[in-house]
Amino acid sequence: MSTTQTWTVTGMTCGHCVASVTEELSELSGVENVAVDLPSGAVTVTSAAPLEDAAVRAAVSEAGYTVTGSAES
Amino acid sequence: MSTTQTWTVTGMTCGHCVASVTEELSELSGVENVAVDLPSGAVTVTSAAPLEDAAVRAAVSEAGYTVTGSAES
Repeated sequence: MSTTQTWTVTGMTCGHCVASVTEELSELSGVENVAVDLPSGAVTVTSAAPLEDAAVRAAVSEAGYTVTGSAES
Repeated sequence: MSTTQTWTVTGMTCGHCVASVTEELSELSGVENVAVDLPSGAVTVTSAAPLEDAAVRAAVSEAGYTVTGSAES
């Protein structure tokens, strides 16, 4: 069974930005899918087990962007 | 002696876009420097000899963007 969580990320402006965030998040252990909605900044991550918020924030930061909110769904 | 020419490129929204355009233009024969002003879309290319407009437009297109104007300076 998979878990889906959503974070809001600011600063992404184009497809390259989306690719950078997706790449960093995909490297986290257990991540199965990353979906980014560019206009809203919503980043939805599907993973084998719930991800630690701090790990996601660190990965997004590594890509050069900032998490401004989160919500489990 | 070098030549400096400026083109206007639309669609660049972030540093990744700038890097893509710079990379493609840098591959053109004789290009010595590429300077991009993101807010205005002005792309200034310094080269050993004048570049053909069509070659520059093709390189920008290859990067995924569009030239909308040009001016020699």
